[in-house]
Amino acid sequence: MSAVSSPGSFTTEDYASRMSRAADAAARAGLTGLLVTPGPDLQYFAGYAPIAITERITMLAIQAGRKPAMIVPVIERSDAEAAPGAGALSMAEWTDGQDPYAATAELLDPDGRYAISDSAWAMHVLGLQERLPGSTYVSVTSALPMLRAVKDGDELALLASGAAALDAAFHDLLRIRFSGRSELDVASDLADLLREHGHSEVEFTLVGSGPNGANPHHQVSCREIEQGDMVVLDFGGIKGGYASDITRTVHVGEPTDDEREVYEVVSRAYTAGLEAVRPGAACQEIDRAARRLITDAGYGDRFIHRAGHGIGLMGHEPPYMVEGETSALEPGMCFSIEPGIYLPGRFGVRIEDIVTVTEDGGRSLNSTGHELQIVS
Amino acid sequence: MSAVSSPGSFTTEDYASRMSRAADAAARAGLTGLLVTPGPDLQYFAGYAPIAITERITMLAIQAGRKPAMIVPVIERSDAEAAPGAGALSMAEWTDGQDPYAATAELLDPDGRYAISDSAWAMHVLGLQERLPGSTYVSVTSALPMLRAVKDGDELALLASGAAALDAAFHDLLRIRFSGRSELDVASDLADLLREHGHSEVEFTLVGSGPNGANPHHQVSCREIEQGDMVVLDFGGIKGGYASDITRTVHVGEPTDDEREVYEVVSRAYTAGLEAVRPGAACQEIDRAARRLITDAGYGDRFIHRAGHGIGLMGHEPPYMVEGETSALEPGMCFSIEPGIYLPGRFGVRIEDIVTVTEDGGRSLNSTGHELQIVS
Repeated sequence: MSAVSSPGSFTTEDYASRMSRAADAAARAGLTGLLVTPGPDLQYFAGYAPIAITERITMLAIQAGRKPAMIVPVIERSDAEAAPGAGALSMAEWTDGQDPYAATAELLDPDGRYAISDSAWAMHVLGLQERLPGSTYVSVTSALPMLRAVKDGDELALLASGAAALDAAFHDLLRIRFSGRSELDVASDLADLLREHGHSEVEFTLVGSGPNGANPHHQVSCREIEQGDMVVLDFGGIKGGYASDITRTVHVGEPTDDEREVYEVVSRAYTAGLEAVRPGAACQEIDRAARRLITDAGYGDRFIHRAGHGIGLMGHEPPYMVEGETSALEPGMCFSIEPGIYLPGRFGVRIEDIVTVTEDGGRSLNSTGHELQIVS
Repeated sequence: MSAVSSPGSFTTEDYASRMSRAADAAARAGLTGLLVTPGPDLQYFAGYAPIAITERITMLAIQAGRKPAMIVPVIERSDAEAAPGAGALSMAEWTDGQDPYAATAELLDPDGRYAISDSAWAMHVLGLQERLPGSTYVSVTSALPMLRAVKDGDELALLASGAAALDAAFHDLLRIRFSGRSELDVASDLADLLREHGHSEVEFTLVGSGPNGANPHHQVSCREIEQGDMVVLDFGGIKGGYASDITRTVHVGEPTDDEREVYEVVSRAYTAGLEAVRPGAACQEIDRAARRLITDAGYGDRFIHRAGHGIGLMGHEPPYMVEGETSALEPGMCFSIEPGIYLPGRFGVRIEDIVTVTEDGGRSLNSTGHELQIVS
């Protein structure tokens, strides 16, 4: 768990402006402010990632009408002060043996209503609730779901660079041998290719061959890939500080008509999802468009997950393309569209691109096509 | 973020027995039960680590008088069912688009009082509070701090094996050249040595030379190590599923009398901490014993962190050797003792062993001595 340096080349002014916009958004949502803990939110607002996320509380309080303030364990203070956003906030500290929640409470309004980072530790929110019984908390995703959802130009460039690297890795992968090798062998090749194409971290290289592809979260096994297998490849990691994610499904040798039909349904479902993307559309419309196509083809009960998830500093973040998510898409949002069909005991197919919302509709950041690729 | 397989060779019965003991401990503490989320608690109780810890809730409810029940996202159900503890619990699921907190609430007592994993996501505890307004929550560390603190024989063997590997890595490291090379070079050698000695993960290799050693959480830099430098080396990772951690401070060439004196104070502080270990002693007594020695030597304000932390599935877990922690030590508990002195602008010294509590007192799991080693 090493400290992650700030992605891209964002300046203190960039961080100050993000914090100021967030304070305004919180006020508009009827909140006193925003409590940001280590993880993607703190990277986004202060460019700071502590050496590890532990039981020791680090918290940035962004409140309208006040200078942002961050409390850190004293032993991490010099690290925190070196963060590019540190110049735009005031720093407080606490020491082992002190009550960290008493120290944190000093930054807060005792009767405030705060949005807190989704992944803040439960022990921290419970500690603040106990220390400040008049205060109330909601998760950032429920109160301000789209806080990091609209990407600026620099962020979009980093996501596009990650997508291009995955396209290139997939292109290279098509030349390797699949049949007679294990899923683990292919996953290992894929991990090497991600690093070759500039990824600093390989987070997942899922290889689901034959019946293993019917489990959407199957990771990898020692199963030997055979002629006639459909193979789901879902991979990604971190490039330039931003997450990447793609899924392609290939076939070893000639597919059957049945396999080809299922593949085509998924491919058309992706396109239906993409075509539903436009500023103002509700997120759930993307899920519905993709799902309708799969349902009409008779596979509705075999598409067992949402159609997509936002992506940025995190591989999964709002907006989620899921039934019930009525938030409107805005230009600059980036998310996956990844319909799938999973046939237990037989095979699975999933196709996933990262898409951004433009004034004119959806645009994929990936350049690899969706025709079914035959591998050997 | 790959799924971590269950460490050691713990059986379904081992997990069943851990869950049953935890249900009893929760009842004795006046709690309805224990809510366990992905991370070390879930590994400990069910041998299960989901592919990633995300916004999708996975939660194990351990309640007296009921069979333990775990709710998982439907797409991860088959992974969860493959966990070695799965045979000892009933499984529930939820699907994207459903309200996950409504589904989780069905496993719970609407007016229950629960201890919840420290690192459970705030959004999950807030979601449950909203769904079940009559329920209350406390963190595991505040309610049942010592839940995983007493290690059984198999766990102790795994921790001892990690400690032995770090001893061996340090022994090898003494032969390499320090002066004229960067901290990063030495850290990289150290990481290689950890892997050579059987670590599956290298989590930290801190190298603080000269003035950098005066920051207890300094990680590593490009600073060139020089003749006359004190160098703090703090490293560890995961071996056999359990965490490892050690600190040694070495000197490049002959130390000055001053440096030797500071080193000796820290070494004696470690011994004072170790000698304070006995069943029934309050954790804070270990901190006090080590701190008293450093304070008496005039460096009290330069020992700016607690004297130690528990270790097990996590590198940091209860019990904490810190002022205010009055819990009593019990045989089988394992923790670090790691006094340090930090002299800004000059150098730092820290010595850390992992210690276990026996009926007769403290016993270090490390075999490397504490005499100041001279490197070249």
